[in-house]
Amino acid sequence: MKNYGFESVNLTKGYFFDKYELNRKITIDAVYDRFAESGRIEAFKFNWTPDREDLKKPHFFWDSDVAKWMEGAAYLLKKAPNPELEKKIDDIVAEIKKNQCEDGYFNIYFTVVEPENRWKNRDWHELYCAGHLFEAAVALKEIGKPELLECMDKYVGHIHKVFVEEKSATFNSPGHEEIEIALVRLYTATGNKKYLDLAAFFINTRGTEEDAERSSYNQSHLPVREQDTALGHSVRAMYLYTSMAMLAKETNDEALFTACKNLWKDVTERKMYVTGGIGSEAIGECFTVPFDLSNDRAYTETCAGIGLMFFARAMSELDNDAKYADIIERVFYNGVMSGLSLDGEKFFYENPLEINLFERFENRYGKRRLPITQRPKIFSCSCCPPNINRLLASIGNYVFAKGDDVLYINQYTGATLSENGVECEVVTEYPNDGSVKITARGIGRVAVRIPFWCDSFKINKAYTLDKGYAYIQNDESPIEIDFDMPVVPVFSDARIIHSVGKLCVMRGPVVYCAEAIDNGENLHALLVPEEFSGVKTEKCEKCGLMKIQMDAYRTVSERGIYSRKAPTYERTALKLIPYSIFANRGESDMCVWFRRIYSLCK
Amino acid sequence: MKNYGFESVNLTKGYFFDKYELNRKITIDAVYDRFAESGRIEAFKFNWTPDREDLKKPHFFWDSDVAKWMEGAAYLLKKAPNPELEKKIDDIVAEIKKNQCEDGYFNIYFTVVEPENRWKNRDWHELYCAGHLFEAAVALKEIGKPELLECMDKYVGHIHKVFVEEKSATFNSPGHEEIEIALVRLYTATGNKKYLDLAAFFINTRGTEEDAERSSYNQSHLPVREQDTALGHSVRAMYLYTSMAMLAKETNDEALFTACKNLWKDVTERKMYVTGGIGSEAIGECFTVPFDLSNDRAYTETCAGIGLMFFARAMSELDNDAKYADIIERVFYNGVMSGLSLDGEKFFYENPLEINLFERFENRYGKRRLPITQRPKIFSCSCCPPNINRLLASIGNYVFAKGDDVLYINQYTGATLSENGVECEVVTEYPNDGSVKITARGIGRVAVRIPFWCDSFKINKAYTLDKGYAYIQNDESPIEIDFDMPVVPVFSDARIIHSVGKLCVMRGPVVYCAEAIDNGENLHALLVPEEFSGVKTEKCEKCGLMKIQMDAYRTVSERGIYSRKAPTYERTALKLIPYSIFANRGESDMCVWFRRIYSLCK
Repeated sequence: MKNYGFESVNLTKGYFFDKYELNRKITIDAVYDRFAESGRIEAFKFNWTPDREDLKKPHFFWDSDVAKWMEGAAYLLKKAPNPELEKKIDDIVAEIKKNQCEDGYFNIYFTVVEPENRWKNRDWHELYCAGHLFEAAVALKEIGKPELLECMDKYVGHIHKVFVEEKSATFNSPGHEEIEIALVRLYTATGNKKYLDLAAFFINTRGTEEDAERSSYNQSHLPVREQDTALGHSVRAMYLYTSMAMLAKETNDEALFTACKNLWKDVTERKMYVTGGIGSEAIGECFTVPFDLSNDRAYTETCAGIGLMFFARAMSELDNDAKYADIIERVFYNGVMSGLSLDGEKFFYENPLEINLFERFENRYGKRRLPITQRPKIFSCSCCPPNINRLLASIGNYVFAKGDDVLYINQYTGATLSENGVECEVVTEYPNDGSVKITARGIGRVAVRIPFWCDSFKINKAYTLDKGYAYIQNDESPIEIDFDMPVVPVFSDARIIHSVGKLCVMRGPVVYCAEAIDNGENLHALLVPEEFSGVKTEKCEKCGLMKIQMDAYRTVSERGIYSRKAPTYERTALKLIPYSIFANRGESDMCVWFRRIYSLCK
Repeated sequence: MKNYGFESVNLTKGYFFDKYELNRKITIDAVYDRFAESGRIEAFKFNWTPDREDLKKPHFFWDSDVAKWMEGAAYLLKKAPNPELEKKIDDIVAEIKKNQCEDGYFNIYFTVVEPENRWKNRDWHELYCAGHLFEAAVALKEIGKPELLECMDKYVGHIHKVFVEEKSATFNSPGHEEIEIALVRLYTATGNKKYLDLAAFFINTRGTEEDAERSSYNQSHLPVREQDTALGHSVRAMYLYTSMAMLAKETNDEALFTACKNLWKDVTERKMYVTGGIGSEAIGECFTVPFDLSNDRAYTETCAGIGLMFFARAMSELDNDAKYADIIERVFYNGVMSGLSLDGEKFFYENPLEINLFERFENRYGKRRLPITQRPKIFSCSCCPPNINRLLASIGNYVFAKGDDVLYINQYTGATLSENGVECEVVTEYPNDGSVKITARGIGRVAVRIPFWCDSFKINKAYTLDKGYAYIQNDESPIEIDFDMPVVPVFSDARIIHSVGKLCVMRGPVVYCAEAIDNGENLHALLVPEEFSGVKTEKCEKCGLMKIQMDAYRTVSERGIYSRKAPTYERTALKLIPYSIFANRGESDMCVWFRRIYSLCK
């Protein structure tokens, strides 16, 4: 299938629309303001010198932060004018134009702070920053601003000279992947094959004999077509795998597609949290071994979740399987949106599935490595906030896709589509309610995704099921679907020692959590029968999703630290909120997985 | 009560006897040999100079390692001659005599390596090393070798001059407590009050305005009488609390005794593992907050368990309560003896309650802080091995105690007592069997401890219960006790998030564990009904304790990483071994706490 771009999609109502609007009204400016305060915008003026104490010294990944913000801002401008936003972009682009080196090189850090160290260290993010600038350039071209693309085309020429012709850099492929995605996008935006060839060069060089300092940390331990296990830094991995899938599509590369399928399977069937979060280990922000998914130490960077959405979308273009849109749904509603506060101004970099405040031990010998418990407005390494800007500004990219005379409905949210005579309208309260009404015109068939969480549904038309989609002949009359959306327990693979013997609560695609602020101290003392009872749902006005209350038990234990007497229990009401909105009411213990009462004795 | 010293006690049969013999035949020489190989013995010759590459550079805690070994060796010599062992001691003492400074100072590191840095840093263990040398001196005096005591008396004089008269050191009380215990022991061994006064000086100075660099890490955050929460380094804490209890007894200091009772309560009711292990945090080898008792990250240093036995024994002399002997029993059979391999030659410094080999993640950015999984023969910081030497050589110290015409039986093991006309014989297979036969002469009453784990027992005489002891009028005919010793589940306080919802298995004082080598991979998938069935016990010839087999279930989970379907279970036989002998058959996953099946649905 080919996904429709957000430019052809209008979000009309519901969660996608609300988050799009939050980004448009609040988050895009909040990130810009933090970047201005932190010197990231000023840095594009190239004024820093060691004696300028009035200026913040640039950092070698600042280009990428601002580039991602510009990309997101450009997407917003595609949909609606915003002179202020436009001026901010124009000013930055003007500085880039002014300060780009004669030879095409552009980097606000290396040109200003360490000009002698250009292309000296694979881990210094130069190609990563270039990639994000290229993606911004593509976005700006789409709104009639080709200047940045002209600059970046020169930069591509320089990179081609250094890496392909001269091989004069100390390395042959990026230490942090990203430019591969950007180059494929430059190719699809311009049709110029030189971009695709350079993307292929970096992807194909990676992990080969020629590649310098091969390391699983940045997925250069093996040639990419031989990789079948997700290893190393999770964001790097997602960006590489995404670019592999994009290149496989453009070049019909079966071997590359096979590697992508193996990596996809490893990530989503062995190394992913129920929230869709990935990269469980803080040491190196890494993947580890299968089923090593600690809840309280979970790293699960917001950017890794966004990267998984990119990977899934790229895979869906190679394989008409609903499982890709299923993962997009799982991670977007849970492990990605947890990265943004309800007020749209604060961000999580790490997204733990459990917080136990009492465990935050520290003494003069050090502290335990545990995720922070409140969202800050910015990080010194602030990659996630602008990634949320560009994701939400382009979230319309994930709703519809086109196959051979078939319109795929991948995500259910209030939206309309209009492109080349294909029209569609989706009316739904999803994910708060499972009924969806779809009206499509100018297309022979409609394929609706049967969500991964759904055990039972009704469609008012005949359909045939294939790889998670229900295919319906389109007579252009409304298609009415009703997905049963009960509150259900979900159980993990027993090999996940941190959630075995427990259950988590989901309703539709939304994973729920309990906070101490609603349920009292020691959430671990809560015990949930696997047959739910007393379930009540209520709309949470603040987040637009449903809150849940249900019967549970609480362990009563004042029998001495170790006792022959089994603990007793008292009934309690378990109050649950969507995982994505935890930590919006101050510091609190939180957990997603609850000890379950087994029915073995029945 | 007043505990009888091991010199009046003969161990005849059973666990205490077996471990005493293992130490006498194997461990005492194994530790000496490792210390010889590592240069610790040679260091007493004071031959090291920067240019002597043939010699190992001494470390500032080496005095204490060798002193603890000498103390243990002296205890063994008290019971039976051993010319080889005696010569090793005599040679070390001769070097000490020869190399002690004119002014009485003695330290194999500071005299040889950094003479200019004497008494400059509270954390450099000088007073700690002195204390262990003093304890060795007391032990040697008891076997007719007063030379070391004569040397150490000079050293005490020097310390008194520096700390009390001149106050010329950069600190006022030890950074690692221990000397306080040693000084009280010097006092009781010699009757010379100057030792007691110096002990009181260090204890009373601690944490006061005058004390330098006050820190909870070494329990100097508050004056000792104001301390009621166990904080900081757990071994330091145990040594301080022990000395506080000893001083309180010698000086009838009620305020000090009250502080000891509060600290005892905090340690044993809020900060102790079911094995009796204490000090859960590796960062600083520390106590943390109540109920923070992670199983896989448990630090629980062997020395801290031994220190808890010292503290308990000292408390028992202030308060005729069986709870002190209960804790000695809990920690000795479990969290202390786990520190020694079955062959008597290898040691654990840390004693985790859970091992998951797959979690041992490491990459170029670091590794997870988890305890090692196999016992080495020596550590660079090798405090635990000689502590085991001296503990086992004097384990007879814990069996009997004397009150006002009453003989207390604190530990049940094959043993005889003979001192000042009081005679006693204990015949039992304990802890493998609960029947105990006691014959006592020359004493009016016998008080037998009803163990903490015992719900039901029979005694063939009339008795009155008080603070965990059954008091029996002694007609000198055999007292026959039968403690019911079933295999039972034990439940933790629900505030311990790492064991809530789980159970552990105990029989008598012995805590059991499962190893993957007996039970297959993923011990977390095991599920144990709270009513045990199919229980079989069998003597483990290698360890002298009982092995257990019982019915359990194993979670079968191949339903995808997250599933609506609840896992299914298959019956399995759970094979358990005493916790203290884990990791004697190579690397293996291990766990003590098992998920339990609740009976709530009944």
